[in-house]
Amino acid sequence: MESILFSAQTSSDGVLERDFTLGDIAGVLWSPTSPASDRPTPLVLMGHSGGMHKRAPGIVARAERYVSDYGFSVAAIDAPGHGDRPRNRRDQQWVDELMRTRDAGESIAPVVAEFNASLAQRAVPEWQATLDALQALPEIGVEAPVGYGGMTLGTAVGLLLTAVEPRIVAATLGGVLVYDDLVEAARAITVPVELQLPWDDEEIRREGGLALYDAIGSKEKTLHVNPGRHNQVPWFEIDNSSRFLQRHLGWGGTLRR
Amino acid sequence: MESILFSAQTSSDGVLERDFTLGDIAGVLWSPTSPASDRPTPLVLMGHSGGMHKRAPGIVARAERYVSDYGFSVAAIDAPGHGDRPRNRRDQQWVDELMRTRDAGESIAPVVAEFNASLAQRAVPEWQATLDALQALPEIGVEAPVGYGGMTLGTAVGLLLTAVEPRIVAATLGGVLVYDDLVEAARAITVPVELQLPWDDEEIRREGGLALYDAIGSKEKTLHVNPGRHNQVPWFEIDNSSRFLQRHLGWGGTLRR
Repeated sequence: MESILFSAQTSSDGVLERDFTLGDIAGVLWSPTSPASDRPTPLVLMGHSGGMHKRAPGIVARAERYVSDYGFSVAAIDAPGHGDRPRNRRDQQWVDELMRTRDAGESIAPVVAEFNASLAQRAVPEWQATLDALQALPEIGVEAPVGYGGMTLGTAVGLLLTAVEPRIVAATLGGVLVYDDLVEAARAITVPVELQLPWDDEEIRREGGLALYDAIGSKEKTLHVNPGRHNQVPWFEIDNSSRFLQRHLGWGGTLRR
Repeated sequence: MESILFSAQTSSDGVLERDFTLGDIAGVLWSPTSPASDRPTPLVLMGHSGGMHKRAPGIVARAERYVSDYGFSVAAIDAPGHGDRPRNRRDQQWVDELMRTRDAGESIAPVVAEFNASLAQRAVPEWQATLDALQALPEIGVEAPVGYGGMTLGTAVGLLLTAVEPRIVAATLGGVLVYDDLVEAARAITVPVELQLPWDDEEIRREGGLALYDAIGSKEKTLHVNPGRHNQVPWFEIDNSSRFLQRHLGWGGTLRR
């Protein structure tokens, strides 16, 4: 198994932030500078949106909150061809096609569905390798509960990953363009899921989000809807995600402030 | 203006519970035995479900939480013909009709809509008189922010009340059988609303709840959906309602534990 290589680190306000690589995967690990207890620190894997990267503002805002308020560790990696990772020829064709259809005022849904499906399929084994390597770190270990969080592309990745990865015990997801493979993955999920949907998404129809919620196989699944366009989630939903993850990953009473 | 008459009081765990009457209205007021600060204590009005009363388990659970964790005061009153209040002849006819249609396996929706509409219309001026009288109490006063919470019949009452009562600055509501007057009231509401819908309600169709959410005129409106039948809400939604009310009524930083 390959090991994580840390390349840079900064820390502020009790949050240690470290860049890492694992083969050609580029990631960031946020963790508490001093752990809250002797118990293993719960770990949250965060998948970014399409076109974004491991340090997207929504990822960073959540990561800092999860670490400083709940003492979790948070890892984010760039999706294939995103952030610091080179884009291959086929991905470039999808990006070009996306630009072309958007500029032409056509629906981008068919391209997004195909592109997301490919990215998510490639991201799943990368996340599994990353999780293996993170659990080999002494400050994380194999006993820490693991959760997942993501929006749009990060939701597509999260659905596929959560459906096949028994180490993930809870997932907080968002709006995503829904295609058949995602519905199938949703049906296979049994761990608690929180799904946050913007109600006025111009690219993703409400019906898709509601059908996805319906399909999730979990006994505990909670849907949060708010006014807002694509990828817009009010700030208080970060608080909700924190508490959802705390309920399912926390050891109890670890809120730090 | 009539005054509130207190008839009985108990206290435990820092929560003072007092029965009161205001003319022929019967109510309960829960408040902190020692206020958290010099600021006026935010007040939450709670409307119970159809067939229930001011001390329904869901009301009591929320009231104790709001008082002990957030230092709010909470008031609940019996709806007309509910709890300690005599049922008039017309209400008795509706109740009989409800039983008959349910036993016959027919839809109770038409009767519920008519009955709820009548109860809610009568409850609004009662709540306004109760709020006047509560604000005349020295421990509440006119400066305390006021919120509303309720499920089913309590939602119908809350929609009508919040639409016409400027003292209510936020409302947390639940599933309700939706009829035209409620949609109209929802459109007139501009304060933040949280709407909690059970997804598997056998009596209230999902579409009604989603249409109600759509109709709410507020810029901040948040919808929470969970698996569950009529009037079933998971315990963690009490926590969500608490935090919603704290955001909009709280003076900041008053969480007590």
